[in-house]
Amino acid sequence: MPATLEILCIGDELLIGRTVNTNATWLGNALTEAGAYVSHSVTLADRVTDIHQALQLALSRADVVITTGGLGPTGDDYTVAALAQYAGMPLELHAPTLAHIDQLLRARGRQPNEYSRKMALLPKGATVLPNPAGAAPGLLMHIADKPVIILPGVPHEMKALMQDHVLPWLHRHYALDKVQYHTWHLVAAESELAALLAAQEAGLPEACSLAYNPGLGILDLRLGMRIPAPDAGKQVRFEQIRAEISRIVAPWCYGENGVSLAMALGQALRTQGLQLAVAESCTAGLLANTIAEVSGASAWYVGGALTYSNVLKTQLLGVPPVLFETAGAVSEEVALAMAAGVAGLTGAQVALSTTGIAGPEGGTPDKPVGTVWIGVHTPAGTVARRFLFEKDRRRNMQRAVHAALWMACKALRTADQSS
Amino acid sequence: MPATLEILCIGDELLIGRTVNTNATWLGNALTEAGAYVSHSVTLADRVTDIHQALQLALSRADVVITTGGLGPTGDDYTVAALAQYAGMPLELHAPTLAHIDQLLRARGRQPNEYSRKMALLPKGATVLPNPAGAAPGLLMHIADKPVIILPGVPHEMKALMQDHVLPWLHRHYALDKVQYHTWHLVAAESELAALLAAQEAGLPEACSLAYNPGLGILDLRLGMRIPAPDAGKQVRFEQIRAEISRIVAPWCYGENGVSLAMALGQALRTQGLQLAVAESCTAGLLANTIAEVSGASAWYVGGALTYSNVLKTQLLGVPPVLFETAGAVSEEVALAMAAGVAGLTGAQVALSTTGIAGPEGGTPDKPVGTVWIGVHTPAGTVARRFLFEKDRRRNMQRAVHAALWMACKALRTADQSS
Repeated sequence: MPATLEILCIGDELLIGRTVNTNATWLGNALTEAGAYVSHSVTLADRVTDIHQALQLALSRADVVITTGGLGPTGDDYTVAALAQYAGMPLELHAPTLAHIDQLLRARGRQPNEYSRKMALLPKGATVLPNPAGAAPGLLMHIADKPVIILPGVPHEMKALMQDHVLPWLHRHYALDKVQYHTWHLVAAESELAALLAAQEAGLPEACSLAYNPGLGILDLRLGMRIPAPDAGKQVRFEQIRAEISRIVAPWCYGENGVSLAMALGQALRTQGLQLAVAESCTAGLLANTIAEVSGASAWYVGGALTYSNVLKTQLLGVPPVLFETAGAVSEEVALAMAAGVAGLTGAQVALSTTGIAGPEGGTPDKPVGTVWIGVHTPAGTVARRFLFEKDRRRNMQRAVHAALWMACKALRTADQSS
Repeated sequence: MPATLEILCIGDELLIGRTVNTNATWLGNALTEAGAYVSHSVTLADRVTDIHQALQLALSRADVVITTGGLGPTGDDYTVAALAQYAGMPLELHAPTLAHIDQLLRARGRQPNEYSRKMALLPKGATVLPNPAGAAPGLLMHIADKPVIILPGVPHEMKALMQDHVLPWLHRHYALDKVQYHTWHLVAAESELAALLAAQEAGLPEACSLAYNPGLGILDLRLGMRIPAPDAGKQVRFEQIRAEISRIVAPWCYGENGVSLAMALGQALRTQGLQLAVAESCTAGLLANTIAEVSGASAWYVGGALTYSNVLKTQLLGVPPVLFETAGAVSEEVALAMAAGVAGLTGAQVALSTTGIAGPEGGTPDKPVGTVWIGVHTPAGTVARRFLFEKDRRRNMQRAVHAALWMACKALRTADQSS
């Protein structure tokens, strides 16, 4: 039987809107992809009576309850004590957990104290799920004959415990649906793509769905299908739909199933034996950081110049000062000179440059906020293109980074096909 | 009487983790700051029986219920019909709403159809809250003698209806609390700080709370107090507690009420008339980008060098190649040479450098993943400090950025005090 789960997110900071509840999102996605059904996720206060009430309701309607949050060392963390009280299980000091916490704190140069020790007071009889990423462990308790899984609220600790313990446990104890996904990562607009795929979408079989998840100038398209029991026919149908959509979206597709734009660019550089450098003005390090997030980037990425001021554009990249007078810092000429300049400075064969008005200030009637010039230098030459994004500084930087990486991908794709 | 509210977020896409529930966060914050109490926020599926069950529970425990989502034109939007059925109110075509929707669609170049008409079928007797930002209106219904407010799920439409109708309505009908907050932004560990503030925390008056919100190497501490009726004594007490905590946390405090580390550093640089440059290896642009997020940063920040490769560390910053042999790229010597080098290259008086092993690869027994050397150059000299962070690449970069900005803040603080 596929498992129905209810998620209880415990924490005043979620309820009063100080923290975005990304845990509920991540858990909903991970559990759905594992083939389980999430029926409710409830956010409640750090208050013992509320925890008891929510637990009682969840136990009455779900197969498994997962809680997050309220396991920390401070006075406003009540989850473990409240659940232990509800279950009638006394708290006792768990020696291996205490040793783990003491060791962790000492490694960070801190002294264990009564607060840190509180995290080792666990319900007697609970299964302890060691926390590979932090202090407070996860717990598995059985209350009213149903499993209750207790996880910390710190997102990376919660995720580590889910991966290491909870998902494998669910797979062992429940006949979860097989869920099949395929994701295309595209540079395309949602409404245009929806029109292109209208026929495919109308013809999707039952339990099969196509979801659009738009980002900043990019779009993830996800095909999903639940296959409750082994069914070769359904599997074949899924593959047919997948192939059909792949053919349609190919011109806009930079990667599939988790490949980022920077990873796609890195793959192209690696294949062609080229090295990349960047010269950033308006993106101010975000382009470099997005590139360096790819593990192993040092094989094809050397670094570059952060030329936030015009003086540095000249001094480091050799941009002729006269260009700032004649064309302005945000111009095709400067974008070209920056891209060629950083290639010369670093010896990289491929280079990207950005210069623009990220906002909120600095716009003019000619060059409004959101105007960005992006330059691409390859062995085939240097080109630049103008973009007009929006009003928001952060979003403009992000859009410029995506546009730059996609320009480089396309430039290398053309180079590869013509060679 | 202050109002207790329960939020029902209706939508499969929230439950399966395709969409982050930012509506719950925004509503929690807006309602708390308005002086109301949010007791629960529940995410549930687009399913009539689930909507009925959640509504019944919410009506039993809250003064006011707010729902979001499920007002759209497509077949999976059930909220209005489900609530009308629960309340025993028939649906009828609401002519002003139909006219509004028709006009809106025509302005967008689209034809009204049976789907758009569905959004004008509203429960007879409900108060219609015109939507200034979209098609489907908000609704105010009384069910079992309690107000139920129905809002769309599209965030900017929901926010517009809250601002235009719901918050003013709450203020008219309920004696909402006055809520006072003060936040300290600290570089400190939660358990140590909790120990330091134990006496203050134990002595907090009723309706006053101290919340810890830890980040990566940083921590927000928030004092909150509800003052239900005008009360000069409570106001004075709040100020006393605030002053007392300010005194205790001063050594670790970089800002208050929304000041970021980069903003605090910018303020110090501006005051002392100094300019900043960066030389990044392991943080790979994240430090520069964090600095450039501060609006107006160009007044005190010039840019710098992204020296991901050792060749560039030498070529751009003048790091002697022999250091890579004798001390290694991740060393005090290289961090010092990078900081001094980028100051020389750019002419900035203050410079920050980072060199480390962000991971997941590249660690050695001597220099495990997470080892980062950070250099700070000021007119008073150049220093470097070693940090040992953790295993995760992204988090290590973020921690290094926080550590670097804090080192610079402290160096300038000392310089300011000794001058």
